[in-house]
Amino acid sequence: MSLFQPHIEAMQGYSPGEQPTNPRLIKLNTNENPYPPSPVVLDAIRSVAPEQLRRYPDPMGNLFRQTAASIFGVEPQMVLCGNGMDDLLNLTVRAFSGPVAKLVFPTPTYTLYAVLAEIQASMVQEVPFGPDFTLPANDLLAAGGRVTYLANPNSPSGTLVEAEVVSDLASRLTGVLVVDEAYVDFADADCMSLVHRHDNVLVLRSLSKGYSLAGLRFGFAVGPKRLIDGLIKVKDSYNVDAIAIQAAAAAISDQRHARQCWERVRTERTRLADAMTKLDLPSLPSQANFLLTTVPAKPGAAAVYEELKTRGILVRYFKLPGLDDKLRITVGTPEQNDALLKAIEEIVNTSV
Amino acid sequence: MSLFQPHIEAMQGYSPGEQPTNPRLIKLNTNENPYPPSPVVLDAIRSVAPEQLRRYPDPMGNLFRQTAASIFGVEPQMVLCGNGMDDLLNLTVRAFSGPVAKLVFPTPTYTLYAVLAEIQASMVQEVPFGPDFTLPANDLLAAGGRVTYLANPNSPSGTLVEAEVVSDLASRLTGVLVVDEAYVDFADADCMSLVHRHDNVLVLRSLSKGYSLAGLRFGFAVGPKRLIDGLIKVKDSYNVDAIAIQAAAAAISDQRHARQCWERVRTERTRLADAMTKLDLPSLPSQANFLLTTVPAKPGAAAVYEELKTRGILVRYFKLPGLDDKLRITVGTPEQNDALLKAIEEIVNTSV
Repeated sequence: MSLFQPHIEAMQGYSPGEQPTNPRLIKLNTNENPYPPSPVVLDAIRSVAPEQLRRYPDPMGNLFRQTAASIFGVEPQMVLCGNGMDDLLNLTVRAFSGPVAKLVFPTPTYTLYAVLAEIQASMVQEVPFGPDFTLPANDLLAAGGRVTYLANPNSPSGTLVEAEVVSDLASRLTGVLVVDEAYVDFADADCMSLVHRHDNVLVLRSLSKGYSLAGLRFGFAVGPKRLIDGLIKVKDSYNVDAIAIQAAAAAISDQRHARQCWERVRTERTRLADAMTKLDLPSLPSQANFLLTTVPAKPGAAAVYEELKTRGILVRYFKLPGLDDKLRITVGTPEQNDALLKAIEEIVNTSV
Repeated sequence: MSLFQPHIEAMQGYSPGEQPTNPRLIKLNTNENPYPPSPVVLDAIRSVAPEQLRRYPDPMGNLFRQTAASIFGVEPQMVLCGNGMDDLLNLTVRAFSGPVAKLVFPTPTYTLYAVLAEIQASMVQEVPFGPDFTLPANDLLAAGGRVTYLANPNSPSGTLVEAEVVSDLASRLTGVLVVDEAYVDFADADCMSLVHRHDNVLVLRSLSKGYSLAGLRFGFAVGPKRLIDGLIKVKDSYNVDAIAIQAAAAAISDQRHARQCWERVRTERTRLADAMTKLDLPSLPSQANFLLTTVPAKPGAAAVYEELKTRGILVRYFKLPGLDDKLRITVGTPEQNDALLKAIEEIVNTSV
């Protein structure tokens, strides 16, 4: 007999994208920002004192909360720090859903939602997105979730649902709406203002992509104080460390550096999408730092994925219904994107 | 109606010890190591490169795993990194216990076990320790937990159960035995070798106390590969950050620095306990970096706690049955301990 609970024993676990260590590889598979973090982040890390390590950190990370509050126009008490956004997703799943409290999300989307629900043995309902990834609002409402997740921009599609459409959904849901804005820094709009208008909306943000800090593990939630206070009961007492608090506060305080990065990524996103379309690999209109590109049946997405890999270029291939003719490709630096385009052109021409 | 699950709405949440920011306070309430971490930890933090921050960290923290494996005489696959030991406790609660899978522990002990069980709506049975905190082995067995927790040394008592007694318990339990060794670096013995002899034993360690890194949030689990593999399915993909992996590996590699700290704490522990006993405040024999001291009814533990606080000395007072005549006092530096002894002497003399 297994020592684990049956639902844990039965599950497979989440498969993150590959994290190879070869620095010569062109890594376009896990949506990291291609540009380095702000220099003020390195300064913040290097100025950490031994005493900050010896003592427990501030349980609430108030330095970050206050900085975020002033930048995003909310109260510090409306901000909750997380050890990466995954930590916050995990908290919300445990706080709002369970064996008799349904968790709902439109698919295809970030596959972690389903895995987190599985870990909690939570009731789940997946609702297919409408054509071109439009929000299936009525089906989401009919599902009656105690918590509904919306990645916006969505992954792997890169598509964005307008804030007013999200707001309308929130006002009609009886449960909580979690808007996962991991990629929103690359988009033209966001849902942050909804936290003032709805008592059931939580907006989640990540520093992994927009602030080039995937290695730091830092995310934050913004929402009505009552929701934040409840999540505080569920979180680990000291879920963010002293270095991360200081580095993350520094990162968001340098909005100028961040905005320059975002603009460069957007410019390259347009160029890459256009060039791929010319190679007969069209993408959905993306508001994120990646493209979901459809590959013609010949050579096929799996073959292009493998061929790129042999050439030292890593992209993401999801062997899932509706996605197995597509590749999710992170927007890299101009040089990386050029190398990708050259490789794809060769692969496509060879296969004809 | 609450947006939270009913058991979350109803719960109070864990109360960590106070973390005041006044640096002049003598802080003997949350069992931090009084000495700074090894200088190699600071070097490791300062050598973090922007590229390590931009990219996702190694999901398994293999640099730490390999270092720990060689130091503790296990295979790297038997080691799991955690964002503080709390992260690992949280994983084990979610993996092994639930509404129909009982979680058992002897009390009084680390109050987080009960809170984590409450968050998961897990079945719980608390079993009182025997006289002088002897292990209530038969009662623990009779409770029939799918998982049993043993803090060893225990907090707040500081007492240690011998490894052979723990081993005997493990061999008779049908579920998992989690040995929480947060304080073991200050003890004369440990249970690490049990992971080779039992397929149901997990040993948890922390860098917070023994390595003066409470601010870093790093703990690790050691156990049979099958248990570690199951926990990997439950953990967040990137639960430890790139800086923490590098800093933690550096910390445990400097065993010489760590051992010197532990020895200094042990020496002071003996001196402090003896001096307190002379003031009529006897302690249980402690194998940790704190003392559980009984305060005479006059002035009483609550009064001494308050009086110490007004003098700028913070200790821990648990307003709980069986503990409300006691104080848990972290062993500080010789200077801090002298200040504590002087203050207690004054308080005791004034109250007579």
